[in-house]
Amino acid sequence: MTTTLAPPAKPWSPAEFEARLRAVGQDRYHDRHPFNLRMHQGDLTPDEVRCWITNRFHYQRHIPVKDALILAKLDSSRLRRMWLRRIEDHDGRDEGEGGIERWLRLGEAAGLDRRTLLSGESVLPGVRLAVEGYVNFCRLRSPLEAVAASLTELTAPDLMRLRIEAFERHYPWIAADGLGYFRTRVDQGRRDSAEALDLVLRWARSREEQESAVAALSFKCEVLWALLDAVQQHAVRQRTVPQRAGHDGPRERV
Amino acid sequence: MTTTLAPPAKPWSPAEFEARLRAVGQDRYHDRHPFNLRMHQGDLTPDEVRCWITNRFHYQRHIPVKDALILAKLDSSRLRRMWLRRIEDHDGRDEGEGGIERWLRLGEAAGLDRRTLLSGESVLPGVRLAVEGYVNFCRLRSPLEAVAASLTELTAPDLMRLRIEAFERHYPWIAADGLGYFRTRVDQGRRDSAEALDLVLRWARSREEQESAVAALSFKCEVLWALLDAVQQHAVRQRTVPQRAGHDGPRERV
Repeated sequence: MTTTLAPPAKPWSPAEFEARLRAVGQDRYHDRHPFNLRMHQGDLTPDEVRCWITNRFHYQRHIPVKDALILAKLDSSRLRRMWLRRIEDHDGRDEGEGGIERWLRLGEAAGLDRRTLLSGESVLPGVRLAVEGYVNFCRLRSPLEAVAASLTELTAPDLMRLRIEAFERHYPWIAADGLGYFRTRVDQGRRDSAEALDLVLRWARSREEQESAVAALSFKCEVLWALLDAVQQHAVRQRTVPQRAGHDGPRERV
Repeated sequence: MTTTLAPPAKPWSPAEFEARLRAVGQDRYHDRHPFNLRMHQGDLTPDEVRCWITNRFHYQRHIPVKDALILAKLDSSRLRRMWLRRIEDHDGRDEGEGGIERWLRLGEAAGLDRRTLLSGESVLPGVRLAVEGYVNFCRLRSPLEAVAASLTELTAPDLMRLRIEAFERHYPWIAADGLGYFRTRVDQGRRDSAEALDLVLRWARSREEQESAVAALSFKCEVLWALLDAVQQHAVRQRTVPQRAGHDGPRERV
């Protein structure tokens, strides 16, 4: 049992708090991951691009799930209306619209079958675990932490712009209209991150709450990093290990 | 340990399954609750009507929360789009719209202050427990059970029509435009229950699943019944126990 307690640390000013959140994005966002660097430098083989699309799709299709779990934590119609739009962005207002559909079209433009993508059968175990970890974080943590974890959107729009350029230059075998997802996310990401940053700055009053928000954003960066680690490891394995049909290490089917 | 197992029971036919679900609504829906009968017979005092509005509002404001938890369990954009509309029905597409707003206007038409309703301070402990029980049911149970619990909507539209007539006849001191919530729910409830019934009939294939759906709907009827029990008990207490200012039994503030 602690008998003497240090006085609680003073909260950071809003400016310092925001700077610390942005610093997490700058230091730990997955744009620095070796696999992403290779992707943007044009060094991926078509199979590696397809492996990334397949595995990232597993993340994409869970975005509305984690957003619905965040929605359930919001205690006013005004806040829920704001957050609900994110679910619409990914699921679409009508059939054939939305970010998940656009991702499926990216897959098709890269030569992947929509049914294979939807079956989830080629998703790597590490990717499943990373996505499940993120969904459960949004399920179990405070509204502040769940919303703060979404602040990778502060850094995402710049990455999307670079990615569109990189894909147009290095992977011209993917038809340009397959890149619709990235184009849409530039503006959506800016709006989403501005809204979420505003909530996080207002909700986190104590130093403890501010630190929990920074930790949540770090965690989210780790999720995205772990996803690329799994894809990268798979790529290395494909090159170095003699292939046996139908076997590619343990594979979890959920 | 069981050493001999009975063979699994044969699933009910779709028609029998649907009939069993509808029977739960007919037998156990809260339209038969003594408090509801008194309400529709015009026997409630203005204070009793206001107490019911205040406590039922606690239920109403949690509908989008339980629907967001159900949304998070649905695994396709098509299903989520369908269910998301329920959240919009209650939260509104824009400020000043939606079922929660309409319920607040019912409260105002009955002389209740919007801020008091939103504060939740007059909500009875039994009502809090019933609502929390329902939200947690939707959080923790299978998609089938969570959707089946919503099937009280099979019976709700008829109740809404009776309620509009009863309020117009017996409680003319409540302005007619305060009844907008009930009017809107006649059509919304019909559409919602048709959609949910279709899902439940398709999802529940084994007898065990069918029985879990029937049990979920029974549970939901118990939630609504318990809510009225708490309101009824409070009304009895108000009449029989000498009133002490500021004390009305234990009150939980969440």
